[in-house]
Amino acid sequence: MVDLASFGMVGSARMGEVSMKLYDGARAPNPRRVRIFFAEKGVPLPELIPIDITKKEHKSEAFTKLNPAQRLPVLELDDGTALAETIAICRYLEGLHPTPPLFGRDPKEQALIEMWNRRVELGLFSSVSAVFRHSHPSMAELEEQVPEWAEANREQVDDHLWILELQLAGNPYVCGDSLTVADITAGIAIDFMKPSRIRLPEEFVHIRRWHGELAARPSWKA
Amino acid sequence: MVDLASFGMVGSARMGEVSMKLYDGARAPNPRRVRIFFAEKGVPLPELIPIDITKKEHKSEAFTKLNPAQRLPVLELDDGTALAETIAICRYLEGLHPTPPLFGRDPKEQALIEMWNRRVELGLFSSVSAVFRHSHPSMAELEEQVPEWAEANREQVDDHLWILELQLAGNPYVCGDSLTVADITAGIAIDFMKPSRIRLPEEFVHIRRWHGELAARPSWKA
Repeated sequence: MVDLASFGMVGSARMGEVSMKLYDGARAPNPRRVRIFFAEKGVPLPELIPIDITKKEHKSEAFTKLNPAQRLPVLELDDGTALAETIAICRYLEGLHPTPPLFGRDPKEQALIEMWNRRVELGLFSSVSAVFRHSHPSMAELEEQVPEWAEANREQVDDHLWILELQLAGNPYVCGDSLTVADITAGIAIDFMKPSRIRLPEEFVHIRRWHGELAARPSWKA
Repeated sequence: MVDLASFGMVGSARMGEVSMKLYDGARAPNPRRVRIFFAEKGVPLPELIPIDITKKEHKSEAFTKLNPAQRLPVLELDDGTALAETIAICRYLEGLHPTPPLFGRDPKEQALIEMWNRRVELGLFSSVSAVFRHSHPSMAELEEQVPEWAEANREQVDDHLWILELQLAGNPYVCGDSLTVADITAGIAIDFMKPSRIRLPEEFVHIRRWHGELAARPSWKA
């Protein structure tokens, strides 16, 4: 995990009047999406509570009370409310800290960003994750692996990449001239190809240009 | 499909200054989510363009230009913008017509509704859909079916149902005292169990109470 002190991000776990805890899983892609989102907002990370998936801590009784879906991350608010689902946590932060806008500024922009975030999340990210969860040896103890599902998804990755490639051929970022939550989701999906043992073919030149720029942002170390 | 004239929902395809077209697939669950959302908002449906999935019209070149993911529904705005992804379309409508609020009114409420909508969508609805797509004979020509994936999902449906059941044990609706987009997604998931040939066990008494109330709403005929 990044050295948070180098971001000036420790020392305050407060956002406005709200003190929070983030149940975090260091290398997993969804907790990382949330940490990158905080960094892009310029908001200090709340207190991090590490949950070790390899020790099945996310299946403990205590954690299941926080999130019955037994998934990371979870943001616990000061009033005890447990907020799960990566995009729900990001949207909460957007509501408290509207600038810079990462979910859009008006109904049409918000809808197009929602569309692209879902398109890359339910398409590319979901397929890459399925390959990882259902074929990676480290997941064998955590998942009822279905190898046929890993293979079916592996075959779909290229189609999802082409949708992203064509969009990035005409736009600096996924939704236009500035970074949005859709770039974070898509960039994390590309990063997650490596542990999923999927190569990004050379021909995706626009994805390579855009991903190189993303990876150079300070937030990407989160 | 519902007789729209009985809702007073024909005669105007205008929302404010925006004239639109909705690419629709009559019995498919996602187009129906959007039609129910329009009805709950009290907004007339735009012009409907039927797309016949059984004839693979969603894979045509013309439709692929509208939505490279080749999925329904798509809302085409007057300026030619093609808005895909059910929840993006619903959120656009929420922006234009904030009342009644179906995505929440403040950051915390919005985040909790987003969480529950995703929890039921990526959990229950996704599993029920996987059973349908990967086991129903009518889908054999449209999908590369992976029977092992249908079975793995069939085994998970009960876990997803219990998450919903426990939430509805303490709340009239999924997110509290009034209907939100999360109820529409969850209700559609329950409806979709029937064509997916999954029985709702008797023991889910709170789901049965809530679903009975949903099904009695005029919007549910959409």
